[in-house]
Amino acid sequence: MIIVGELINASRKKIRAAIEAADADYIKDIATKQDKAGATFVDVNAGVFVGEEPEKLVWLVNTVQSVIDKPLALDSPDPKAIEAAMKVHKGTPMLNSISLEKDRWEKLSPVIANTDIKVVSLCMSDAGMPTTAEDRVKIADELVNRLSKINIPPENIYIDPLVQPVGTDYTFGIEFLRAVGQIKDKHPGVHIMCGLSNISFGLPERLFLNRIFMALAIYSGLDGAIIDPTDAPMMGTIAGATALVGKDKGCRGYLKAFRAGLVKA
Amino acid sequence: MIIVGELINASRKKIRAAIEAADADYIKDIATKQDKAGATFVDVNAGVFVGEEPEKLVWLVNTVQSVIDKPLALDSPDPKAIEAAMKVHKGTPMLNSISLEKDRWEKLSPVIANTDIKVVSLCMSDAGMPTTAEDRVKIADELVNRLSKINIPPENIYIDPLVQPVGTDYTFGIEFLRAVGQIKDKHPGVHIMCGLSNISFGLPERLFLNRIFMALAIYSGLDGAIIDPTDAPMMGTIAGATALVGKDKGCRGYLKAFRAGLVKA
Repeated sequence: MIIVGELINASRKKIRAAIEAADADYIKDIATKQDKAGATFVDVNAGVFVGEEPEKLVWLVNTVQSVIDKPLALDSPDPKAIEAAMKVHKGTPMLNSISLEKDRWEKLSPVIANTDIKVVSLCMSDAGMPTTAEDRVKIADELVNRLSKINIPPENIYIDPLVQPVGTDYTFGIEFLRAVGQIKDKHPGVHIMCGLSNISFGLPERLFLNRIFMALAIYSGLDGAIIDPTDAPMMGTIAGATALVGKDKGCRGYLKAFRAGLVKA
Repeated sequence: MIIVGELINASRKKIRAAIEAADADYIKDIATKQDKAGATFVDVNAGVFVGEEPEKLVWLVNTVQSVIDKPLALDSPDPKAIEAAMKVHKGTPMLNSISLEKDRWEKLSPVIANTDIKVVSLCMSDAGMPTTAEDRVKIADELVNRLSKINIPPENIYIDPLVQPVGTDYTFGIEFLRAVGQIKDKHPGVHIMCGLSNISFGLPERLFLNRIFMALAIYSGLDGAIIDPTDAPMMGTIAGATALVGKDKGCRGYLKAFRAGLVKA
């Protein structure tokens, strides 16, 4: 399972304050915690700093990569911020994210064309957010098609079918899950990932629902998630679900998660 | 979701002692608790009383039905015990269980033929327990075929594909889940149920794994389970998974479970 650590996001008050104060130690600490907790990538987002996003994002990349060896997910729709961050990033970063929205596609696609960057690709177009599995699959097809034309190979594509709240429409969960399965079937070389906390919006005990949904999505074929890797019950759920769907030989990953204290009934 | 309350089973020491002492109050209390917790059926098992099983099972049926209005699952492979229990049972009981094992089939099928009893039908033959989805589907086909010949309609058939421990072979979880989906596709009118605690045999934090597996099985099409209905986190998981897979309009079942205190992150 590919884990993108989501905590270093300037929309969170403490992160915003740390970036404003250039408090490198705070950012380094959050980065290290996510690294140790098993993040594959660490997301960095400075989106709230309008007009200063490129320099803030560059500062985040340098600060985080001064303490951890993992690649980062550069989280911005702003081509200038992405370009600047790509220049200082060590290793191969992830872009979070492109979509079929005309403006976003036209601005970001030239920046990533012919590079080996990994690309989170949202199932979103100017027609809005898709609600059915079929609509998501159509957008995913087009994303894979367009990305291949700018020389992004399938293994560097991370389709995000976009989770929508089951409290808004009770079919939104199953339509997302069906989309994951269908996209996996049509594009077996492509990754499928998402942030999933949206599923529980408006309902009580959101973390409880988020975990169950993670298990269901793993069963459907999800192989990546943008989450808080220091959330032990979520990481334990990922280990448990991975074992239960036959993707953990000898249940070694589950036993490792148990020994790390992530699994508790 | 069809819930069969599993607690009144003489293989459990306190239940055995209560049956031996004809302690009706203890049995009534356990029955009432399962009833209130949402059991659809209450299982009764007196299997350890060799030679006295019919009279003990009859006593259990009478005792339990003196306090609750729910139908019972008569849990025995002994045709005499089943026949005696069916005679005193009020309403339509469930048989737990028949299988393709020659001895069991030949003894039990005449007892249930042409009745409206509900029949838990294990995917088990004299060739042993199946391990792949395909082997389970073959046995399920044969069970549905034979049961239809003795006039048990599809809606009264509850196929149990038999869970096996993922700690023994890491494919055992996914093969079970695939079997559920395939049986559901081939026999849409039939119910699929199981006891699922076997999945976690030999692994730590079994209740944690059992809950995740329940969610995955519900997604695969399971519509019944033999469990402890007083296990709040399990009942909460059932409610959560049911909502997430689009089978809970307005998330009403989930919200009801939340208000009942079953859902806790």
